[in-house]
Amino acid sequence: MSSEIKSRVRCDIDLDAPGRQAGYLRAPLSRNTSGWGTVEIPIVSVKNGSGPRILFTGGVHGDEYEGQIAISRLARTLDPATVQGQVIMIPAVNMPAVMNDTRLSPVDNRDMNRCFPGNPRGTFSEMLAHFIDAIVLPHVDVSIDLHTCGHSGDAALSTNMHYVSDKAMREKTMAAAAAFGAPYNVVFWGVDEGATLTSAVERRGILSLGTELGGWGRVNVEGVRIADRGLQNIMRHFGLIVGEPETRQKDGAAATRHMMVRDQAGYSFAPSGGLFEPRNVVGDDCRAGAKL
Amino acid sequence: MSSEIKSRVRCDIDLDAPGRQAGYLRAPLSRNTSGWGTVEIPIVSVKNGSGPRILFTGGVHGDEYEGQIAISRLARTLDPATVQGQVIMIPAVNMPAVMNDTRLSPVDNRDMNRCFPGNPRGTFSEMLAHFIDAIVLPHVDVSIDLHTCGHSGDAALSTNMHYVSDKAMREKTMAAAAAFGAPYNVVFWGVDEGATLTSAVERRGILSLGTELGGWGRVNVEGVRIADRGLQNIMRHFGLIVGEPETRQKDGAAATRHMMVRDQAGYSFAPSGGLFEPRNVVGDDCRAGAKL
Amino acid sequence: MSSEIKSRVRCDIDLDAPGRQAGYLRAPLSRNTSGWGTVEIPIVSVKNGSGPRILFTGGVHGDEYEGQIAISRLARTLDPATVQGQVIMIPAVNMPAVMNDTRLSPVDNRDMNRCFPGNPRGTFSEMLAHFIDAIVLPHVDVSIDLHTCGHSGDAALSTNMHYVSDKAMREKTMAAAAAFGAPYNVVFWGVDEGATLTSAVERRGILSLGTELGGWGRVNVEGVRIADRGLQNIMRHFGLIVGEPETRQKDGAAATRHMMVRDQAGYSFAPSGGLFEPRNVVGDDCRAGAKL
Amino acid sequence: MSSEIKSRVRCDIDLDAPGRQAGYLRAPLSRNTSGWGTVEIPIVSVKNGSGPRILFTGGVHGDEYEGQIAISRLARTLDPATVQGQVIMIPAVNMPAVMNDTRLSPVDNRDMNRCFPGNPRGTFSEMLAHFIDAIVLPHVDVSIDLHTCGHSGDAALSTNMHYVSDKAMREKTMAAAAAFGAPYNVVFWGVDEGATLTSAVERRGILSLGTELGGWGRVNVEGVRIADRGLQNIMRHFGLIVGEPETRQKDGAAATRHMMVRDQAGYSFAPSGGLFEPRNVVGDDCRAGAKL
Amino acid sequence: MSSEIKSRVRCDIDLDAPGRQAGYLRAPLSRNTSGWGTVEIPIVSVKNGSGPRILFTGGVHGDEYEGQIAISRLARTLDPATVQGQVIMIPAVNMPAVMNDTRLSPVDNRDMNRCFPGNPRGTFSEMLAHFIDAIVLPHVDVSIDLHTCGHSGDAALSTNMHYVSDKAMREKTMAAAAAFGAPYNVVFWGVDEGATLTSAVERRGILSLGTELGGWGRVNVEGVRIADRGLQNIMRHFGLIVGEPETRQKDGAAATRHMMVRDQAGYSFAPSGGLFEPRNVVGDDCRAGAKL
Amino acid sequence: MSSEIKSRVRCDIDLDAPGRQAGYLRAPLSRNTSGWGTVEIPIVSVKNGSGPRILFTGGVHGDEYEGQIAISRLARTLDPATVQGQVIMIPAVNMPAVMNDTRLSPVDNRDMNRCFPGNPRGTFSEMLAHFIDAIVLPHVDVSIDLHTCGHSGDAALSTNMHYVSDKAMREKTMAAAAAFGAPYNVVFWGVDEGATLTSAVERRGILSLGTELGGWGRVNVEGVRIADRGLQNIMRHFGLIVGEPETRQKDGAAATRHMMVRDQAGYSFAPSGGLFEPRNVVGDDCRAGAKL
Repeated sequence: MSSEIKSRVRCDIDLDAPGRQAGYLRAPLSRNTSGWGTVEIPIVSVKNGSGPRILFTGGVHGDEYEGQIAISRLARTLDPATVQGQVIMIPAVNMPAVMNDTRLSPVDNRDMNRCFPGNPRGTFSEMLAHFIDAIVLPHVDVSIDLHTCGHSGDAALSTNMHYVSDKAMREKTMAAAAAFGAPYNVVFWGVDEGATLTSAVERRGILSLGTELGGWGRVNVEGVRIADRGLQNIMRHFGLIVGEPETRQKDGAAATRHMMVRDQAGYSFAPSGGLFEPRNVVGDDCRAGAKL
Repeated sequence: MSSEIKSRVRCDIDLDAPGRQAGYLRAPLSRNTSGWGTVEIPIVSVKNGSGPRILFTGGVHGDEYEGQIAISRLARTLDPATVQGQVIMIPAVNMPAVMNDTRLSPVDNRDMNRCFPGNPRGTFSEMLAHFIDAIVLPHVDVSIDLHTCGHSGDAALSTNMHYVSDKAMREKTMAAAAAFGAPYNVVFWGVDEGATLTSAVERRGILSLGTELGGWGRVNVEGVRIADRGLQNIMRHFGLIVGEPETRQKDGAAATRHMMVRDQAGYSFAPSGGLFEPRNVVGDDCRAGAKL
Repeated sequence: MSSEIKSRVRCDIDLDAPGRQAGYLRAPLSRNTSGWGTVEIPIVSVKNGSGPRILFTGGVHGDEYEGQIAISRLARTLDPATVQGQVIMIPAVNMPAVMNDTRLSPVDNRDMNRCFPGNPRGTFSEMLAHFIDAIVLPHVDVSIDLHTCGHSGDAALSTNMHYVSDKAMREKTMAAAAAFGAPYNVVFWGVDEGATLTSAVERRGILSLGTELGGWGRVNVEGVRIADRGLQNIMRHFGLIVGEPETRQKDGAAATRHMMVRDQAGYSFAPSGGLFEPRNVVGDDCRAGAKL
Repeated sequence: MSSEIKSRVRCDIDLDAPGRQAGYLRAPLSRNTSGWGTVEIPIVSVKNGSGPRILFTGGVHGDEYEGQIAISRLARTLDPATVQGQVIMIPAVNMPAVMNDTRLSPVDNRDMNRCFPGNPRGTFSEMLAHFIDAIVLPHVDVSIDLHTCGHSGDAALSTNMHYVSDKAMREKTMAAAAAFGAPYNVVFWGVDEGATLTSAVERRGILSLGTELGGWGRVNVEGVRIADRGLQNIMRHFGLIVGEPETRQKDGAAATRHMMVRDQAGYSFAPSGGLFEPRNVVGDDCRAGAKL
Repeated sequence: MSSEIKSRVRCDIDLDAPGRQAGYLRAPLSRNTSGWGTVEIPIVSVKNGSGPRILFTGGVHGDEYEGQIAISRLARTLDPATVQGQVIMIPAVNMPAVMNDTRLSPVDNRDMNRCFPGNPRGTFSEMLAHFIDAIVLPHVDVSIDLHTCGHSGDAALSTNMHYVSDKAMREKTMAAAAAFGAPYNVVFWGVDEGATLTSAVERRGILSLGTELGGWGRVNVEGVRIADRGLQNIMRHFGLIVGEPETRQKDGAAATRHMMVRDQAGYSFAPSGGLFEPRNVVGDDCRAGAKL
Repeated sequence: MSSEIKSRVRCDIDLDAPGRQAGYLRAPLSRNTSGWGTVEIPIVSVKNGSGPRILFTGGVHGDEYEGQIAISRLARTLDPATVQGQVIMIPAVNMPAVMNDTRLSPVDNRDMNRCFPGNPRGTFSEMLAHFIDAIVLPHVDVSIDLHTCGHSGDAALSTNMHYVSDKAMREKTMAAAAAFGAPYNVVFWGVDEGATLTSAVERRGILSLGTELGGWGRVNVEGVRIADRGLQNIMRHFGLIVGEPETRQKDGAAATRHMMVRDQAGYSFAPSGGLFEPRNVVGDDCRAGAKL
């Protein structure tokens, strides 16, 4: 029995077909008020000629808006005639969380990005994670998953990636990050990994790049601009559309600044409960021992 | 270790004993207010002589009443002396959902009929599904699972069955459906299947028949009548009690009308959110393209 | 200070203006995610020439659909040129309950129809009730409030009215009920009254008519037909539009059957908890002492 | 019976005593787990010699941090010997909301700032509002209530005030706003007013000034700086401590910019549901008709 | 309009009739699943000849069992022929809380014993409090309200009373407490009073006695024995039944020990959050300053 | 891949290091308000020289206090210089339940003591159970898990153990129970076992002893005394510290009384719903058939 058969999620469109395909993933959700109800998750594929296959995902967490906006815009406008290769776009993967404006899915109170590789018979988030991993990922060569900090906090506008052990893949990923063109690119050893989409992508040998393009539960206007440009840049970088990536930064820098989180010392924990008063904002220079 | 040992659910009665056995399934449920509490689920077995073993289940969804009523009535009244074979009756399988008057179990917010084959160490609904599949099903030859549409909608009064690939089993099931004697019998390819009781029954090579005998969260008076008669008809059809099935319909038809759902076109989805205004009720003739 | 000033609800349209006015009631609702948010409740006024002023309300309970459908349809289509007088239409009064598909408002867990005459500084339902009572009712001569039984049960398709002590008003109301043309009209002494919209209307000396046009949480297709026709009939009866009310019944009867609930004996209570098995449906003849 | 007697909230400290008094407001809260429990709300009074009496309040909404931080810092450090007059500081008025990090109180799901003038026998928020209005306000001449936009949105760093009809009071309030020294001061006709602390203060003829010093559920570092300085400036302006207000702005401007919201056109509503993509941030120049 | 008319609660029995009357208070509760539902609260009156009228109430808080048990037992067994006067028994006043096993009502999240004198148009608990105050209390001369500490804590088995200012009433109440015969009787100035049943009783000049007969969410076996005996003792003391109160204590003492809470020093608050480790149990001798 | 790597829980301290190590288990918990948040669970290891390794755990259920208090006290005071062997102390294993004062974890509504052997990718409780089983247990020879009855009921102060089939282990466990020195030691066949910590410990061939040292959601003062003494006694019994166990009982008995639950007849179930009135307290002599 193939893995596609085993998923309870049904995909309206043919991921192998050329041209523009727009439809829904239909995920069954038995509720008290709708026993045979489904959740519809928009998916758009734009395919033409030959070339790499790229997956753009947004809304894995429901309260992270910049990716949803940029991928939706691209999905409405990308012309197959201009493309060599394939772009699969799922702007709002975790639709119940998106409709609820929360990080976690209100269906099962799970963080979908801690549910990979998922389970076709598990909870709704696990079922969805399984579909992305087992059905969608085999169709792609590159995965760009757009995140922000949601309601948890803020981040400097950045791409991010794991320090993967395969040097060639690491360098290809850093090149892709440089092409995306966010102000920063953060390279780190995984924290609480294994159950994330990133880990699922890496396990399949696919190039994986993430982002943090805002936070605080707001739409970051500059984050949306970076996302819009980054999607175009990625398509240029991999040769799907013509042109060179545009990576000049607002502060005049010519390129993305790569930074590294080398160990646990990169993270600080509050020593007790209370109301935390920060002294800095994202992007400030800090030194160990200084008041935050 | 046998599968019976592994279940945490304890069955009060001996399913192999002759005569009338009435007791409880005792399912442990650790709660904040009762750490070693159990949930008691009535089970009645009536066994005599030799003959097929039939399982009648109701209340797999808590807000589906017709089966609960008809099976409870039968369980209170069936005289072993009149029976050749065995009838096992569980009128309210999913007792927490029944007490809560909801489709889903309030314990784990799961649809028990999406939890098969279950897991003896999983959530409450998974544990219960495992018990039914691993402990009860090995004792039966025929499974009749009585459902309605609950609060989700309405259905024409009907039995239903999968278009199982084994032709002999398919014909035996259609014959059982005809004997049950509902106005309609619906044959369909499974939707969101695999995790249902029906699928679990079929995996064990047992004859499986379901029903839709009402809906809208009401007790359908005619649905109860069909259920009462259907249980008697099934026992007659399989030779457990004497007599011929009585299948004359209210509208004068002599027999059940078999209908088939051949593909996805049998289902319609609303193209957008809002308040849906139907133009038909169950049983009306509709044509593709006509306003519903 | 006038009562209009004291309400926190703002009305977009001028209730005294001629022609078609369509807009929103804007009711402030401070939430954790939107401190200065408002709830928008559609309101349409159609006014021309001279004649009575009629208020059509639906959705006082969120899960009662027939009135919402019929009043919305009328609000989209009624041409001022055909009208003498004024029709004010609020198809979904209790918008938070309508969006939640529940009888009670999810904002304050209150039944809005137990909150009259309301309180401009109280909970959301109380604030809304106050607006309807203090701001809207002074603009109308006749109030037709469309209800069904929601998820609580079912009713024969009917209008209903209190046995008001003023004989002239009682006879005018019965005449309006007869004009509405539902199969039944129920006259009763109030139960749990005083806090309902009906009571608020009566306190102001305005003619008040209610309906029960369905139930069980479904859209009653015949109930919608009766509602559509009833709204037209009421406008004809009061001379707002030309024509005679059409009151012929489906069963061939020429007119509405008036029935009376004279005392508490008209209501039965279950003597204990459990699963209630009814033996009749709405409209059946029952006798005292017979099994229900 | 005096109004002080009628409140169920007990104040630990003597608001008329000189020197530094630090204690709690003890508000009774009967819970399922603590029938005679109380909620403790810190209050600090610093009084010396003669001079105006000022009330600094924060945390009327639980997720607005800048005022809580600045007032707590002042409460820990203000030396009575340096003061002429009285400063009463309640940095976290709505303690249940503060502990819950939400705008609304989790006790009664109410916005305390829509509960004034309150009710000593009402819900918890109403009881607390009554205490502030009836017991605390009679002790003060000036009320400075520090707010932000919480999780609802963002605001330019600003003070705000109503366009009160008494011209002398309006000018005194504008002068106080200028002394506070936020980048902006917003003057507006009240929206959804009457039930706010501001309205309660105005009804008593007390000078009332509010702020918006951040938002998005974050601590605005610059907002805290403006708050710290603003509290000092207000004390200087009213002569409680020596010195001149320091009002130079970060952008070089010498003083606060006063702006006015003249009518409803100052507010825009989304015409439909969906994901809103903004094009501007707070402080940007916008024109009517331009895309936001 | 009389106050009886204004209550929405209907009383099945005639409180003025002689003999044994047993029925229900029927309190309307509009729910999402039952729009015209009622809550039934058992009430029993036993009346004969002339003599004082006593009210025994239990279950004002749902998780206080001893009074519910003792009053229910008395209500089932008290023979009118043995009585001179009237005993009105409501063993489970706050039925929604009793069914939910919580102090607060799950309907409105209110402590009914903080809702007096209530409001016939308010929330469910307020409506119920109003009924007790306005309809029941005018029928009684003595009110004995049985409480325990519920899930909040524990108490020495005791009656309690306010130090009412009317000396004659105070002495009559102390005599009644002595007759009840609990190990302790606690006299105190009210804490968080005014909204309790006790206060409502006192406002009407009726003798009021309360109890604390257990706690910790358990049934205190000795507390039930004291309650059973106390109800008999009270009826003897007031001459409703023949015989002398039996007040000998288990520890050999001949009578109840009266204790007094003179001021706030009788209560201690935890100085910070955490897990509290007590060193004593109820009834231990403690001294100010000693470790608890 | 080793099992330690697979856990998402990080342990701050080196379990193999000598001396006193105090730190936290850091368990990741993605929440709507803190995507990369962790839960900190205190762990203390005291190790010196050679000797058995003992694990003391408390707070597996959040509302069981006696073990939390006794183990916390020991963790703050135990001097490595006095020890031969190792004591690992986790006084509040299930920190989310401890902070919530409930048996079940509020994160996933699971009883952690029904989640063993756990799952590193499962829900929070399953992840935590896996860490204890797979990472901590391999470091210990003896496991003492301190429980009470929480809010579910009460128990005589006791240790308890399974009637394990290995006679040598059973006798070693009974000797350890006798050394612990509670008034009772209960030996029983497992009920609802397999998923408990006890079962996980036994599966690894480690000596397992449990306790019931209180209940009713209170801190049992005598239970804390028994717990304090029991921990010391266990360390003496296994030679970690010098001295003989002190097992004299309060009632003068020299030693623990061993009791046995031989079969299901040791448990009684209520035959119907209602308010249960007990006639005995823990420790009373009861006979089959007598009223409880």
